[in-house]
Amino acid sequence: MNVIRHTMSLVSLGVFQLGRRTRSQHFRGFLLGTGLGLTAFSSVTYAQAEAQNAKVNRKLDTSRFMAEPITDATVLLGDKANMRHRMELMIMEIQAEFCRALESEEMCGKKFKVDRWQRVEGGGGITCVIQDGDVFEKAGVNISVVTGWLPPAAVQQMRSRGKDLTEGVKLPFFASGVSAVIHPRNPHIPTIHFNYRYFEVETPDGQKQWWFGGGTDLTPYYLDEKDARHFHQTLKSACDEHDTTYYPKFKKWCDDYFRIKHRSESRGIGGIFFDDIDSPNQEAAFNFVTGCAKAVIPSYMPLVQKHKNREYGNNERQWQLLRRGRYVEFNLIYDRGTKFGLYTPGARYESILMSLPLHARWEYMHEPKATSKEGELMKVLKNPKDWV
Amino acid sequence: MNVIRHTMSLVSLGVFQLGRRTRSQHFRGFLLGTGLGLTAFSSVTYAQAEAQNAKVNRKLDTSRFMAEPITDATVLLGDKANMRHRMELMIMEIQAEFCRALESEEMCGKKFKVDRWQRVEGGGGITCVIQDGDVFEKAGVNISVVTGWLPPAAVQQMRSRGKDLTEGVKLPFFASGVSAVIHPRNPHIPTIHFNYRYFEVETPDGQKQWWFGGGTDLTPYYLDEKDARHFHQTLKSACDEHDTTYYPKFKKWCDDYFRIKHRSESRGIGGIFFDDIDSPNQEAAFNFVTGCAKAVIPSYMPLVQKHKNREYGNNERQWQLLRRGRYVEFNLIYDRGTKFGLYTPGARYESILMSLPLHARWEYMHEPKATSKEGELMKVLKNPKDWV
Repeated sequence: MNVIRHTMSLVSLGVFQLGRRTRSQHFRGFLLGTGLGLTAFSSVTYAQAEAQNAKVNRKLDTSRFMAEPITDATVLLGDKANMRHRMELMIMEIQAEFCRALESEEMCGKKFKVDRWQRVEGGGGITCVIQDGDVFEKAGVNISVVTGWLPPAAVQQMRSRGKDLTEGVKLPFFASGVSAVIHPRNPHIPTIHFNYRYFEVETPDGQKQWWFGGGTDLTPYYLDEKDARHFHQTLKSACDEHDTTYYPKFKKWCDDYFRIKHRSESRGIGGIFFDDIDSPNQEAAFNFVTGCAKAVIPSYMPLVQKHKNREYGNNERQWQLLRRGRYVEFNLIYDRGTKFGLYTPGARYESILMSLPLHARWEYMHEPKATSKEGELMKVLKNPKDWV
Repeated sequence: MNVIRHTMSLVSLGVFQLGRRTRSQHFRGFLLGTGLGLTAFSSVTYAQAEAQNAKVNRKLDTSRFMAEPITDATVLLGDKANMRHRMELMIMEIQAEFCRALESEEMCGKKFKVDRWQRVEGGGGITCVIQDGDVFEKAGVNISVVTGWLPPAAVQQMRSRGKDLTEGVKLPFFASGVSAVIHPRNPHIPTIHFNYRYFEVETPDGQKQWWFGGGTDLTPYYLDEKDARHFHQTLKSACDEHDTTYYPKFKKWCDDYFRIKHRSESRGIGGIFFDDIDSPNQEAAFNFVTGCAKAVIPSYMPLVQKHKNREYGNNERQWQLLRRGRYVEFNLIYDRGTKFGLYTPGARYESILMSLPLHARWEYMHEPKATSKEGELMKVLKNPKDWV
């Protein structure tokens, strides 16, 4: 009986931890459902349920994640070599580590709201959001694991990027990834965005094409050159461990991609950005992407800690809001992921648009003085520079 | 000498009036340039300049406009029958009347900032903006008169709408129009948008195609059914004077156009929207568009006057900001004019983006209670209804 009580308390603890993170009605987690049934109803099903939980828990400690994985835990562990499963476990881990790192900076104990959602067309995701925190005004960390059919327009877009795909037909696809946008309250802390993803498409002859994509980039409101160098150096080191040609190539790609073309200025001071990584082999590509994702915390959290208690006034706040307006312009007009997402029928637009800041501002003809701190930032946004 | 002194003071007055409205460095007005030279330099050129001004003034009273027309006044009057010229005079008049109607509601005397700008590729515009007024948080009223070459992609887009244009070639075009977006501060006053435009394209065989387009639509934050009926009835009456089939057709077109597809909701409660109007003849089409443009003030200003002194609290303000976020989503993701504008090289993006509110807000998963006032608005945004 002692053993049973002990197991019971462990299970309850697991439920409590998940419950604490899931005040949303949109959560449809496996453990939460089972656990609540377990404690709230009869003891008749207790033995079976406990056994099943123990079995799953023995194999996969899901308590370290923000919610249960999208794919059933037994399936995930049934074929450990499958890249779909390895990627899902990696992004679940990145999500949880990053969310906990951010939560630990919140001074009043604000926690992420966790929404685990399912997609009628196949798969689902876990969206974690902090809104109106004391350090983070809005922070979203999202994972998704989805299957479906690529519409001909998307196939066409991929063909234009050089993919060998049949034109004019729908193709079955699998996509998984982690993405995050963090908008801190203090204008001295930059906004960070990252996204790491794995894609598979099946061609009509049954062949499978796969590739990885991703990137991490920084959007400061005030330029701190030390921060910029630290951020880029951390990304460069992560790249260099795998291929020393990567950082310069992906740094330029990032500068080219995050460009607000109508204003001839960049969204921020860049970072790395890449797509279609399918060499030298799947193992190496996965390790590279994992390395980049693991570099997010060391690239960013020191900046949060350094600036979170700095004083600022209304001028700095208004400038931050104006730059957030530019962030919205880029995301809604140019960002490929946002556009692809919003044009996909049945897309969960709340998860796609979690990247938008809590507040943004647009002023007609606003231009900071060239000699001001705001003007200094504008110089590097107009003409991206090398930081390392 | 008395006559000369009198003329001189009239010219100075004209300059003063324009100068008062043009604190911007971007103004490159004809009268301002001439006038300042006239008073600041020598009297040698006085006689000629005075004669020229007097001649122009006798023919065209430009003092009633917000700035000098884009086309030289003597050219405008030289060919009065030319639709390009008639349209330019009409939109100049609509701009000035609307700006003055709005200014007269400002309680602390806030005036429009007037920017007259020129386009390297041909033509220009006049952008009038109030920012941070006591009644209008942001109000933009813009006219533009431009010529250039339609890029093949734009030709393709027009062909898809049924225009008989040659594919794959650049075609010379002329476009002029007036457009405005008014974001009041009080959440009980709706936002209004309107745009009336005239378009000409020349085909390689020297034939000219022309058409009119436009519309007026309302975006309330709180539903006032009386307002909605008044607004729609005013537009309907303006349409009915020309063709009783217009209002129902253009009301539906408006509901279909201003749809935020990813959210399955409308931007506002609609109004009228139309394009490609080239029948029954140019005269009738111009009169119809003029009638619609003239209906803006009677459709909207009574709503401003009715609500501008109503009390509101933080809840109403936050809801207004959230809805302004949706306005931004529509304009940056779906609006054809914004997209066409921003993708055009050399476009004056500040005039295109003047439609964006001073402030906007995005909350993750915000949904008002169905029984609340906010929920009541959502019902008609989800399912557009007939108001008259």
